Parts: sequence; structure tokens; C-alpha cells
Amino acid sequence: MTKAIDTINYTHVFGHRHLLGIAELSPHDIEYLLERADKAVSVSRQVEKKKMVLRGRTQINLFFEPSTRTQASFELAGKRLGADVMNMSVASSSVKKGETLVDTAITLNAMQPDLLVVRHHSAGAAELLAQKLVGCSVINAGDGAHEHPTQALLDALTIKRNKGRVARLTVAICGDVLHSRVARSNIILLNALGARVRLIAPSTLLPIGVERLGVEVFNSMEEGLKDCDVVMMLRVQRERMTGALIPSAREYFRFYGLDSERLKYAKEDAIVMHPGPMNRGVEISSEVADGPQSVIEEQVEMGVALRMAVIETLIETNDRLDNEKKHKEEQK
Amino acid sequence: MTKAIDTINYTHVFGHRHLLGIAELSPHDIEYLLERADKAVSVSRQVEKKKMVLRGRTQINLFFEPSTRTQASFELAGKRLGADVMNMSVASSSVKKGETLVDTAITLNAMQPDLLVVRHHSAGAAELLAQKLVGCSVINAGDGAHEHPTQALLDALTIKRNKGRVARLTVAICGDVLHSRVARSNIILLNALGARVRLIAPSTLLPIGVERLGVEVFNSMEEGLKDCDVVMMLRVQRERMTGALIPSAREYFRFYGLDSERLKYAKEDAIVMHPGPMNRGVEISSEVADGPQSVIEEQVEMGVALRMAVIETLIETNDRLDNEKKHKEEQK
Amino acid sequence: MTKAIDTINYTHVFGHRHLLGIAELSPHDIEYLLERADKAVSVSRQVEKKKMVLRGRTQINLFFEPSTRTQASFELAGKRLGADVMNMSVASSSVKKGETLVDTAITLNAMQPDLLVVRHHSAGAAELLAQKLVGCSVINAGDGAHEHPTQALLDALTIKRNKGRVARLTVAICGDVLHSRVARSNIILLNALGARVRLIAPSTLLPIGVERLGVEVFNSMEEGLKDCDVVMMLRVQRERMTGALIPSAREYFRFYGLDSERLKYAKEDAIVMHPGPMNRGVEISSEVADGPQSVIEEQVEMGVALRMAVIETLIETNDRLDNEKKHKEEQK
Repeated sequence: MTKAIDTINYTHVFGHRHLLGIAELSPHDIEYLLERADKAVSVSRQVEKKKMVLRGRTQINLFFEPSTRTQASFELAGKRLGADVMNMSVASSSVKKGETLVDTAITLNAMQPDLLVVRHHSAGAAELLAQKLVGCSVINAGDGAHEHPTQALLDALTIKRNKGRVARLTVAICGDVLHSRVARSNIILLNALGARVRLIAPSTLLPIGVERLGVEVFNSMEEGLKDCDVVMMLRVQRERMTGALIPSAREYFRFYGLDSERLKYAKEDAIVMHPGPMNRGVEISSEVADGPQSVIEEQVEMGVALRMAVIETLIETNDRLDNEKKHKEEQK
Repeated sequence: MTKAIDTINYTHVFGHRHLLGIAELSPHDIEYLLERADKAVSVSRQVEKKKMVLRGRTQINLFFEPSTRTQASFELAGKRLGADVMNMSVASSSVKKGETLVDTAITLNAMQPDLLVVRHHSAGAAELLAQKLVGCSVINAGDGAHEHPTQALLDALTIKRNKGRVARLTVAICGDVLHSRVARSNIILLNALGARVRLIAPSTLLPIGVERLGVEVFNSMEEGLKDCDVVMMLRVQRERMTGALIPSAREYFRFYGLDSERLKYAKEDAIVMHPGPMNRGVEISSEVADGPQSVIEEQVEMGVALRMAVIETLIETNDRLDNEKKHKEEQK
Repeated sequence: MTKAIDTINYTHVFGHRHLLGIAELSPHDIEYLLERADKAVSVSRQVEKKKMVLRGRTQINLFFEPSTRTQASFELAGKRLGADVMNMSVASSSVKKGETLVDTAITLNAMQPDLLVVRHHSAGAAELLAQKLVGCSVINAGDGAHEHPTQALLDALTIKRNKGRVARLTVAICGDVLHSRVARSNIILLNALGARVRLIAPSTLLPIGVERLGVEVFNSMEEGLKDCDVVMMLRVQRERMTGALIPSAREYFRFYGLDSERLKYAKEDAIVMHPGPMNRGVEISSEVADGPQSVIEEQVEMGVALRMAVIETLIETNDRLDNEKKHKEEQK
């Protein structure tokens, strides 16, 4: 069912020690990660889901916001690569921002992890940790409303496996764009790979100056979905539905929910995506979520594969850059 | 001290992909699992407690109700078999029943576990997940007041190792039968293996129509314990002791608690069991819990061995059934 | 930068199955553990941080009080030695003291761990568990205000690596000595290795009869720090700052906080230590915490190495003592 992936630039050398955001990646970097992820899919489909390339390496998952799914996806990715994985959940209540994050970095540094996966409620937290940690790759698993790069990459992988490419596709991102790091990372990635991006949302849920992101903006689902290849729904945070931004769940569904009637405005073979967890009956109907155009389950599978590829790539890159540095110093 | 186990049907082929309840097992299935568990006991008694049969397999422990002991027992069992074990604790507050369980199943499915151990507050949750998950065995670690099959199996293993058999023994199950999945699974298993089952409880803590389960019912400990080989105490949930069902902890102990005086009504060599955690001084006295007739600690040890046997059996069965299916399809 | 460690007694035979407190160790025991820890430092500095000596061994981390850092340090130590590590967090609210700890011991015993790391709010909890568990080494990771031996050992290791020795150094321990198990374990260890120990604290935060511990007591930082080689700051528990013992965080810092002005009273090459997590601006200024005399990050690194050495030593000792016992019984 899945089409072949585009041919990519095999000679590309990935040069980043960390994955902090899509914004820092070149189109070649993105294609490189997608290609490796596509190959990693088969590992988890085997009986023995194991590739012992990271034996003796330490991966720490540091989650300041709880996220069962994302943490589980990173944990499985690390374990299937043979790393020692340790979860550190930090109750945000006991954390005083800024100051303590520096102390956390000092502590982590001394524990000598090879990889840190961090989710934090403040934009820039992952970058701060990347600056403070020595000899450790950092993956941003979501920082405030800033970026969530592995989500955008796994979404792109899912699109490529279903559509054969990302370039020249019309992709609609629908819902609470204002508060969504998923939307931000996806807009940057889709633009980088040459897709046409549309945002569909009520004005209250769009950031000011959104047009500068290189997107088309719609306030009507019917207009925005027209001729789309990909429909990406965003999760509505229930805490937003208190009246100020969204009148009610029922009202929201009436105007911005995706049901099968509304989906007909998109192309016949359009795929439907959602980063999860879904609010069924709020932003998406069950009929669509479980229907033939939904690739929501495939997104989760691609999540593990994509994270395996990213983890392996970053650790390889870190090793390579360290060796090059050492080599240069020896030649002096 | 431990007597030899009954000879069992070695040629029996276990045919279940999942362990959802004792009700679905034949006596041969039960004997098969007990025999394998009996052999697994030695693994955890070795210096190197490891049998790498499940290398590269993924076990997910999904607990919607917290249970430190049961989760720990499954985690150790999986790790000692060499599997990658991941715990996913889900705060029940954040879960909307039914709908979300389906989404959880979709997510889990995409993560391609080989084994899912699930505890849930609703009867039937494990079965729902077993229907939705592809290529993954599901073990019910307790679903509402329905079943808790590994507890009944480990209890039977403990009985066999102490009494040589289950058939024709008289077993008294004492306490809050009404709310107990442990009691339900034990009644079904003990009947299947030919024991005589008695229930001892106040009428308020017995289900309506309990006689149809093939048990004798007593409201007095003294009468019910007479000539028993096995005394199984149930845990009293402290939240029940609010007056409606149980007047108070002190009153409960006076009429239904097991102390050494009362234990004398049972056979001299009767064994005392409890699934834990105990309310000392409520359903059982410390003298009995720590006394020579108690096999409560052995139950915990058998728990790990039994779960190792069940995990190994289910994964083997799943592999075998998948291969047979594949073979048939190739022959067409 | 790090000086060579003192020559130690290589022929020393470590004779303890458990590590419950520094008080039970001889100076030779302490030197032995420090020497092994010093060698273990290199393991975590390698690319492959793995030494598979404890394959198939089970380590259980049982924390009745949450402690992200200490638990993480023990978890990494166990995993880097190849053990199966399981975390059991117990919400203290659901625990009734004494009685339940015995039941926990019974449960754990039946799960046959090789090593139990326990933190508990009551002094003596680790010792109780050590008495009840058979064939399992117990490490006290903090019991009430009693002892926290691995913290004192990692502090000594850090001192030795920076100063070449512990003997004859002048060490000031500053702050809430009254409630601190870290202070208690450090006082005992430093005295055993021949250091001169000073305590600097307000009278309300000193235990009665503190002089009998073989220390000099100061109520002024300026006087107490004079000519010190090592300055150990203690964490002030925020819950103490309610007026009864400490007037306010600001007042505390004014009189007992360590800033760079005050640090000048110590020797020019004095090192500054803190067990973490720090209250910057309360007991220590950021300038000092991140300054050139601070070895706080090194303490965390030494923590992992020291715990690896302790875990390996205890399990070896347990194996040896069990074998000797067996051998003696066979000879009878």
C-alpha cells in the first residue's frame, strides 16, 4: 500500500549534535532523517525488535510535563537500539524555573548520559540544556509553544509513505494553531520540503502575523479543505474551552470539527492525521478517526521508527564530531 | 517440604493467545501452566536469574489502577525472561472510559508490543484490548470485579506445592467475595480442578445467586472452616468499612477475622493464604499471618514464577498460531 | 588536576553484606570502598558505559520518599553494572509505618532481589529490612535523620580526588545539622579517616550534645571557615523556614549563606561542596556554586561511581559469605 520513498541525497553528512527544532535543519537534513527512519520501520516489525548499536549508552527521558505517549515512544526507541533508558519525571510544582533547570543540567552532565530527551513547559528549555551539557545529544520533545521536531518529522514520514512525496502537496493544518508547537514545527518542515501549507482556524486561535510563515489562512473548514491532499487535525486543549477562546466543545465541533461530510471537501484520496491524544467529537468524529482515510495509527508506528533514526543519527554525529576534534588537537 | 506435583498431560497443546480469565481455560490448560510455572521457580532461585528467551520482545505493563506488587511481579517476570519491559501508568482521573481505551489500543498497537499486561477498573477492559491489538498477547491483571487469572493460578500452584494436588481438597474463601475478582477467579479454577469450595462471609458481602457457582456458603467462620485443607483470606477494602456493608474494622475482625483460635477449626495441617496486601488485625491476625501454617510469602514467590510461565506460553502460542496461519495461506 | 589517591590496604577483606551506615564501617572498609569507586569512575567516562558483572541480578530501588537524583544515581549504577533494575515508588500516604514495612519485606523477599536500595522517612527502616531479607544486600539511601552512607562516601571520594587525602584536613559542615542525615554520616566518616570536623550553624539547628561527636562548634561562618580545606554546605529544607527555627530565607543567607566574600575566610584552595539540590540565594550564592572552587558537579559524578563500587562489593561479599557458609555446612 505504501509507496516508495523519494530518492534522497545519500552522500549528505548530518552535522547536528542536537535536535532542538525543525528550523535549524536543512531540507537535506530532513530528507536524511526520513530516509533512515523509513529503514528503521522494519526493526519493530521483526520478532526480535532489537538492534544493539547503542549498547552501554545512557538515554535519559526528562519530562517536566507528563506525556505517556511521547515518553513511551522514546523509551521503546532507545530500548530497541540497546541503550540503557532511564525516565526522570519531574513534577513541575517542585521546580522553580530557570535557576533549577541549570542545576538539573549540572546534575545530568555529571551522570554522563549520551542522550537527553526533554519536554518542558518553557520555550528554549531544550536549547539551554544543549548548551550546558557536554558530550550529550539533546532531543527537544516539546518546549512550550515553540517546537516539537520529532512530531513534525514523523508526520512527514507518514505523508511520504502514503503519498510518495511531500513536495507540491496541499496540506491543511486545522485547529488551535496559536498554542501548538506541533503546528509550528510542521509549518516549517512542510515549507522546507516544498508543500503548500494552509491553516484553518478561528481568528482567536491564530497567532498574529501568521501570514509571514508562508501559509494561506482560512476561517472556514469547507473552503480550506478544498483540494487538500493531507488534513492534519490539532488537539484542542480542554482547558481552552472555557469561553474566552472557544465557546464550547459542541460549538467547536460544529464549526471546526472534522466529520465525514466535511472531509468530502478534500481530495478523494486525502489522508487524515492527528498527533493524539484525540478528543473524539470535539475536533474529529469517530467515523473519520477510524475511517479508511485515517493514518493516525500509522503515525504512532512511524513515531517509534523516526525516533530510533534520530537517536542513532545524533549519537553517531556526536561521536564523529568528537573524534574529528580530537584528531585536530592531536595534529597541532 | 514441598511435595511432588501431580503428573500432567505433557502432550497438551496450549491454544490461547491471551489470558483474560480462568473461565476460558480447560483443566488441561490450567495444569499445563502450573507445570511450567513449577519449573520456572528455579530460575529466580539461581544466582543469575535470567533466561534470555524473550530477547528483543516488548512487554508493556498498562496499569489504570496502581498496584505496586502486581506490577512489580510482572516486571520482574518479563525482565528475567530477557524482554524489554515498559511501564505505562495511567492516572484514572485523566481517562474517559470506553472511548479512550480504544484510542489507547490504537496507540499500543502501533508500538508493536508482544505482550500487554493490563489492569483496569472496568470488567471487560482486557478483553476489549485483546480484540483490538494485532500480534500481541494480552494478560488480564485484574479488570473490575471480573477476573484476576494469574492470582488464581499462583494460588493453585502454591496449593499444589504444599498439598501435592488440588483435587478433592476443601478450600474456604473468606471475606468480601462480592467485590473480589480474586475470589471469582479462584472459585472457577478450584472447581475446574475438582476441589470443594466454600465461601465464608456475611450475607452483605456475597453476590446474589452465589450458590450457582458450585460452592457451599457459610456465614460463620467456625462452621465454614471445619475440616478445611486450605484457608484463603480476602483483603477487606478499607473504603468498604463505612457502615453500609461492614460496621467497623473491629467488628469485622471479631466475626470474620482469622486468628489462631479460629484457625484450629480447620485441619491441623491446613495452609493459610492471602493475596496481599494484608490488613493485619482486620481480616487476619499477625500471629496467623506470620505463623507456621501461613504460605503467604510463598504465594509472592510463586507469583513471579507463574507469570514467567504464562508470559512464555502466550508468546510461544502466538508465534505458533501466526506461523500456522502463514503456512496455510502459502498453501492456498 | 586530580591528585593520586592514598595507597590503601589492598589485602583488606570487606565483610559486610549491607551498607546501613558509616558507623558500622572500619577505616579500612571505607578506604576499600573509596579505592574501588575511584577505579569505577572510568566506566562512566567510556563510550560504552557497561560492565556486565551483575547480569541476571535484580536490584530494587524502594523509595518511600521521592528523590529524583539519588534514585537516578542508583539506577544508572545498577544498569551500568548489567543488573535488572526495578523502581518501586511508594506513596508515603498509603503506608502505615512499622507493620506495613514488615509486609513489604515479606513481599520483597519472595521476589528474590540481590540488592535493595531503600529510602525511608524513619530511622532504622533500612536495618529492619536488612534483618528480614534473606540473600539480599540492603543499601540505606537515607533513613530519617539517621544516616545516608553513600552520600558521605561520595563526598570523601571527591575530597580525596581533589586534596589527595582526607586525614588532617579541616572540614566545615555548615547549616541545618540538626535534621541532616548527610551531616551525621559525614561527621562519622571524616572522624574515622582523621579529618578535623567543624560544624557551623545557629544553635537552633544543632543537635543537643553535639560536642560528643568529636567536632568543634561555631555559630559564626567567619570564625568557623578560617583555615578550612573543605566547606560542605547543607541544604536548608524550605519547610523549616517558617519562623520557629529559621526566621526567613533572606535572614538565613545573611548570616549562614556562603558567598564569595565569606568564602575568602577559608583557605585559598578550599573546595566547596553541596549534596544538592541547592537553594541558590539561601544557603549558597550562585557565584560560589558555579565558581572555580566548587566541586558540586564532580560530587554527582562520584555518586554514580561510588554506588557502582558499593553495589559490586556488597553482592560479591554476599556471594562469598554464602559460599563459605555452604562450605562449612558440607564439611560437617
